[in-house]
Amino acid sequence: MHTTNHRMIPANIIANKRDSQPLSREAIRFMIDGFTSGEIPDYQMSALAMAIFFRGMSEAEILDLTQAMVASGDVLKPVGSAVRVDKHSTGGLGDKTSLIIAPLLACLGYHVPMLRGRGLGITGGTLDKLEAIPGFRTNLEETEIDEQLRNVGCVITGATSRLAPADRKLYALRDVTATVPSIPLITASIMSKKIAESLNGLVLDVKYGSGSFQASLSQARTLAKALTRIGELSGITTTALLTDMTQPLGSMIGNACEVVEALDVLQGKGPQRVRDLSIELAARLIYSLDPKHTMENIRTRLAGLLTSGEAFEKFSSMVHSQGGVLNNQFPLEKTRVIVSTSQGILTGLDCQKIGYAVIAMGGGRKRAGESINHEVGIRWLTPLGMVVHPGDPICEVFCNSDSLFEDAKAFIVASLEFDKGTVNFPPLWMEQLQ
Amino acid sequence: MHTTNHRMIPANIIANKRDSQPLSREAIRFMIDGFTSGEIPDYQMSALAMAIFFRGMSEAEILDLTQAMVASGDVLKPVGSAVRVDKHSTGGLGDKTSLIIAPLLACLGYHVPMLRGRGLGITGGTLDKLEAIPGFRTNLEETEIDEQLRNVGCVITGATSRLAPADRKLYALRDVTATVPSIPLITASIMSKKIAESLNGLVLDVKYGSGSFQASLSQARTLAKALTRIGELSGITTTALLTDMTQPLGSMIGNACEVVEALDVLQGKGPQRVRDLSIELAARLIYSLDPKHTMENIRTRLAGLLTSGEAFEKFSSMVHSQGGVLNNQFPLEKTRVIVSTSQGILTGLDCQKIGYAVIAMGGGRKRAGESINHEVGIRWLTPLGMVVHPGDPICEVFCNSDSLFEDAKAFIVASLEFDKGTVNFPPLWMEQLQ
Repeated sequence: MHTTNHRMIPANIIANKRDSQPLSREAIRFMIDGFTSGEIPDYQMSALAMAIFFRGMSEAEILDLTQAMVASGDVLKPVGSAVRVDKHSTGGLGDKTSLIIAPLLACLGYHVPMLRGRGLGITGGTLDKLEAIPGFRTNLEETEIDEQLRNVGCVITGATSRLAPADRKLYALRDVTATVPSIPLITASIMSKKIAESLNGLVLDVKYGSGSFQASLSQARTLAKALTRIGELSGITTTALLTDMTQPLGSMIGNACEVVEALDVLQGKGPQRVRDLSIELAARLIYSLDPKHTMENIRTRLAGLLTSGEAFEKFSSMVHSQGGVLNNQFPLEKTRVIVSTSQGILTGLDCQKIGYAVIAMGGGRKRAGESINHEVGIRWLTPLGMVVHPGDPICEVFCNSDSLFEDAKAFIVASLEFDKGTVNFPPLWMEQLQ
Repeated sequence: MHTTNHRMIPANIIANKRDSQPLSREAIRFMIDGFTSGEIPDYQMSALAMAIFFRGMSEAEILDLTQAMVASGDVLKPVGSAVRVDKHSTGGLGDKTSLIIAPLLACLGYHVPMLRGRGLGITGGTLDKLEAIPGFRTNLEETEIDEQLRNVGCVITGATSRLAPADRKLYALRDVTATVPSIPLITASIMSKKIAESLNGLVLDVKYGSGSFQASLSQARTLAKALTRIGELSGITTTALLTDMTQPLGSMIGNACEVVEALDVLQGKGPQRVRDLSIELAARLIYSLDPKHTMENIRTRLAGLLTSGEAFEKFSSMVHSQGGVLNNQFPLEKTRVIVSTSQGILTGLDCQKIGYAVIAMGGGRKRAGESINHEVGIRWLTPLGMVVHPGDPICEVFCNSDSLFEDAKAFIVASLEFDKGTVNFPPLWMEQLQ
């Protein structure tokens, strides 16, 4: 408790934000501390969150909010002298690059403490994907995380309840009060967890397009700027790339499906876009921390780790260390093909709808805490720009249930857009921030 | 429960309002019913209230919200065939006109069921004022209300918990989540209680100026328009007057103080502004219901009821019927005079600060549920526009405690504004709406 708390009145703090007055560090700390301890009730926090949605926050306020959320819990202590790094994506359909980037960076001696939350909505969670591997544990204790960083170099596990508990509580509240899409709140949520990982370097994959949270490039740029700025102000070398989410990343979508595709890339195969984006994000991170090698050299080195099998070996070590058993075969539900009834150029995809198709089959959550089916999914066969004829396969769906398949099919058919506007596809990545 | 509730998701309803989409009657009913029953938690209601603060509501939405709040509880049944009327003020410093208007209207055969909440903030509550009368009961049962309407014609008592319980619960939530100053929410709150009184006619005293909730005339006009419109749509003949609250109404401020001044007016004495406004509001109400007499005739008739003692007799009957004992003397704390240290024309008064002075002395509530001291108060001696010399009395303060007096004095001294701008005082009332 601060000595000045007796002067702080939650309703006044909410009113100040409502009326566009900046909140002091003290006021932000008072609200977050009180909310975490339960002294400030949810109804005041949700009203404040809605006021922040409408009024925004200055850079100083976002930094104060981020630091207050970090201070609500513990911070992971670094293990030895290795440089600690992480990659964070704002979430996109078919995005499995974490599974590739973590072992790549660990191969080069970095410590990669990837602490993650559960997936919600159309973006699959990395933990859910990894749990498609039999035995894989995502609830490591802090001592196990440290040990694995020492022995393997990378770890992907659930954030413990002691890490930024304010963020965990606030995120759950925002989810049910329509206050998720707020740049200051998103920024503080992401960066508080990264700061609690005690990182030296961070690369952010900020998606734009129909499959991402920030549908427009300018929204994505605004978020990327806020994230990199808060990272830098927190002493983390932070770089961000704006990347394309107008179509799924790679072809495999769903939990086991995405592990299968990540394993392909880790063995020098798999779709080029997944490989390229994984290498690019890792390379930008490495270069931002130490520009003594050229980007081209770094990319070549990373590509070599994929073709040589070293990255795959590292991934296998990580899986083994977390109790998982890697087989060559992943159980997937039975395959059905969805064919086109239309003729034309595929000019648009509503990735939200494709994501809903996976959720409809049980492969994602409608609600926090729901269990999910790892064995359903989609293999997407038609990239944007492809000329499609009636009868051509659009995608394969992995689904045993006839009725769930029909639900998924309805979403997928509705996601397709033919011959609308000019065909002008964005590059896989756009400008870098910081 | 509605048959369609399973399709209603609170977070989606909040998101719709957040994104400026109109809420359906069904959605509003779902939120209010769920909030009243406890199925929808406070944190979702407060987020919705904040979204309404920012996005506003259409006339149709406000009407739906008002009706949903009425439907959350019981409605008073009319007693006999008398025309049922009420006056409602948006609240102002020194406003004791309810105590005068209720008996005036009852003298003319109207039924006046004035059901009120507790005062909060600088505006004293009518119930609190009346409780300065020894024995006066403000917790009448519905059968007692009906009986008193039959026998006396007017009653001023606390709203029972069965009347618009949604409003009671929502108001308490708004008070602590900085969502009070929202025209749609204020309108629904006021009008739901008036509709539950089963009124035929209503006159609204919408204040503007430093002592009122709507500081500007245009804000007051917007609120008056919304209130009268919802009244008319609900079948209540509703008229509104925009009235001056740039200085206290009359000279007495505080609970017993205001009863003393109301008794003066009821006996044909007292400050002209209090008498004039009481007569004007009552006259506009009567004329709006039945324009067969001229306003001038109605005003004369009402003034006669004050000078003849009939209105005082009616007030005495009401007090007696509610268990109160009217003496000639009201206990007030000891008198101290605050004198001016400045020289100049009094060009402005911060009525908020004068209100805080009363609260500081214990005459008003900082928090719901606090008990209050009826015997403290202020007699204001300097109307706007007066030339003041050093040593001239500004006001008398009724306060036994030296330290509370000093607190109050600091507020009062800070409320005074000399020689700022031109002296351009608004009339006691401005335009009428409806």
